[in-house]
Amino acid sequence: MKLLFQKSDILNGLQIASKAVPTHTTMPILQCILLRAQNHRITLTANDMDMGIETDIEGEIIEEGIIALDAKFFLDIIRKMPDNQISIETDENYNTFITCEKSHFNIVGKSGDDFSYLPEVEKNDEIIISQFTLKEVIRQTIFSIAENDANKIMGGELFEVNGDRLKIVSLDGHRISIRQTDLRNSYDPIKVIVPGKTLNEINKILSGDADKDVTISFSDKHIIFEFDNTIVVSRLIEGQYFNVDQMISLDYETKVTVQKRDFLDCIDRATLLVKEGDKKPIIIDINNNHMELRINSVNGSMNEIVDIRQEGADLMIGFNPKFMIDALRAIDDEKIDIYLVSSKTPCIIRDSDNSYLYLILPVNFVH
Amino acid sequence: MKLLFQKSDILNGLQIASKAVPTHTTMPILQCILLRAQNHRITLTANDMDMGIETDIEGEIIEEGIIALDAKFFLDIIRKMPDNQISIETDENYNTFITCEKSHFNIVGKSGDDFSYLPEVEKNDEIIISQFTLKEVIRQTIFSIAENDANKIMGGELFEVNGDRLKIVSLDGHRISIRQTDLRNSYDPIKVIVPGKTLNEINKILSGDADKDVTISFSDKHIIFEFDNTIVVSRLIEGQYFNVDQMISLDYETKVTVQKRDFLDCIDRATLLVKEGDKKPIIIDINNNHMELRINSVNGSMNEIVDIRQEGADLMIGFNPKFMIDALRAIDDEKIDIYLVSSKTPCIIRDSDNSYLYLILPVNFVH
Repeated sequence: MKLLFQKSDILNGLQIASKAVPTHTTMPILQCILLRAQNHRITLTANDMDMGIETDIEGEIIEEGIIALDAKFFLDIIRKMPDNQISIETDENYNTFITCEKSHFNIVGKSGDDFSYLPEVEKNDEIIISQFTLKEVIRQTIFSIAENDANKIMGGELFEVNGDRLKIVSLDGHRISIRQTDLRNSYDPIKVIVPGKTLNEINKILSGDADKDVTISFSDKHIIFEFDNTIVVSRLIEGQYFNVDQMISLDYETKVTVQKRDFLDCIDRATLLVKEGDKKPIIIDINNNHMELRINSVNGSMNEIVDIRQEGADLMIGFNPKFMIDALRAIDDEKIDIYLVSSKTPCIIRDSDNSYLYLILPVNFVH
Repeated sequence: MKLLFQKSDILNGLQIASKAVPTHTTMPILQCILLRAQNHRITLTANDMDMGIETDIEGEIIEEGIIALDAKFFLDIIRKMPDNQISIETDENYNTFITCEKSHFNIVGKSGDDFSYLPEVEKNDEIIISQFTLKEVIRQTIFSIAENDANKIMGGELFEVNGDRLKIVSLDGHRISIRQTDLRNSYDPIKVIVPGKTLNEINKILSGDADKDVTISFSDKHIIFEFDNTIVVSRLIEGQYFNVDQMISLDYETKVTVQKRDFLDCIDRATLLVKEGDKKPIIIDINNNHMELRINSVNGSMNEIVDIRQEGADLMIGFNPKFMIDALRAIDDEKIDIYLVSSKTPCIIRDSDNSYLYLILPVNFVH
């Protein structure tokens, strides 16, 4: 094999493909990126068995071929090369020569025979969405998937298509995040659970360009994202997602309208007195068009009044400040509406056109 | 006590003083910053017993007083407050109320009685140097002090004044760094060893402004840095520093002139193939007006030719790449001169007017 690239082309491709290289694995071949030049096409592939990424790159094929190279060394070498033309050449013993200007690297690759290619998937449905929108809806929900593997379903997000509406849901037992967005076309109903890890990696690769699209296709066991020169294939999580509509009531006794920035800064300050892992609630006391935030810890106490518009009854309620901060950070609106019923029932932050809804369970507190 | 500050004034002062707060200590009072308002002066003090910092800050004294506050909470609270006027008030039980706009914090401080103030030091000599120069000479030598405490003297830097010349030396058994700079005035000879930790912290506080001076004074056991509104007092390391002049020979067989950036980038690439802690040397082969760098490791091999101007004999020599990188990064010159004798003797990088000299011991290598 002998190939020529511009540094930026191959570097960009490697940065994309390396997102599917597992950090820890007992199978050395999985730590490789496959470089393949065939039929006038140069492709980089990586696959951690749950998710595979294949990306086409620009380059000149002098001689076709295929080689699997350790992802870390491959990426590091290309990254540190001068910004110029890079040549990659292999011999029959998988010796790989990477050359740029006067710099010559020689690393030993592996045969592509043992490499696990992307699975062939039979697509049932596909939807189209802009890269910008997909990146946004992932960012605005991904924080509330469950972190540990105790519940496999909670480790993923629900992707639900109904007509021209896409709904994305995540929950971790303490809170629920829902984002809905309009699609350009109308589709048959789809309901799948996508692993959080896949969405985290997709989000790093997406350019976030509003003018560029992502085609998302589905099979029984897989979801496929196609954008730019890249294909990402991920297993789906099997099972039935929670019926979140049943968990959410839109009735309320108290509605609070507040400047998001003021509220967020205030909670941020309050958490100073709480050590990580310490489950100290922040107490929110809504009365007479004022909202007072209070926190007491062994390190001291803090209180602050935030200006609000109040509708309905006075109320005192306790929250895990981290959950409130996560939701507030996800919301782009400057002014938000918080809906409450009692100190024992969840609070809901939502906008009027159902584009987002964040539900947070309250925490018991001592007066 | 009751004091009023602008946020930026007290925040800046706290950031300076906190550099003398130890990360780990069994004495809780050492983790505090002392806030003192007396005689129309507001001072922040911290002291880890090896180094003490005292800095004056702007503010309004409504009522004089003194309190020791946990440095971390104090700094975090001030940092997260709105950018506005901050009031600090204490009562007789050391309850401390920090207020800004509608935000109120209450933390419990400690009496100032147990606090260890800066030692009273009788100054014998003092020199004046610009903040810019002091910051530069520290940065350009501090990397080669010994990291562990095996040899106390190697953990510090020699500060030597001779007439109008300041010489700073650090060494760790594998290399020596020397920086010399002119002083504006001529002084009596001074020779002290300053702890590396003190210099690291001083470097973070110095503004690096060429128009602002630092007054450095010396006593038998202390060095005192005075600049802006800040005083730093540090213990000196006792003992006799190494006679480095005796270790350095300016004779050479080979002189290499090279573009620093090219050489640095090349070594940087070569180290990709070496794991941290792996003591693989980089081999430098100087012949016929070329310098070839080579490295072989279990992960692969690399070679690259760097253009040079060569004077004298051909030579092959091995180095720890990290030591070479550290020295090259410290040098501001675009073009550098490297002086060599043999593969068994140290190489020296120095400029023609003795402003810097870096000596690096070679490493044995297998052809």
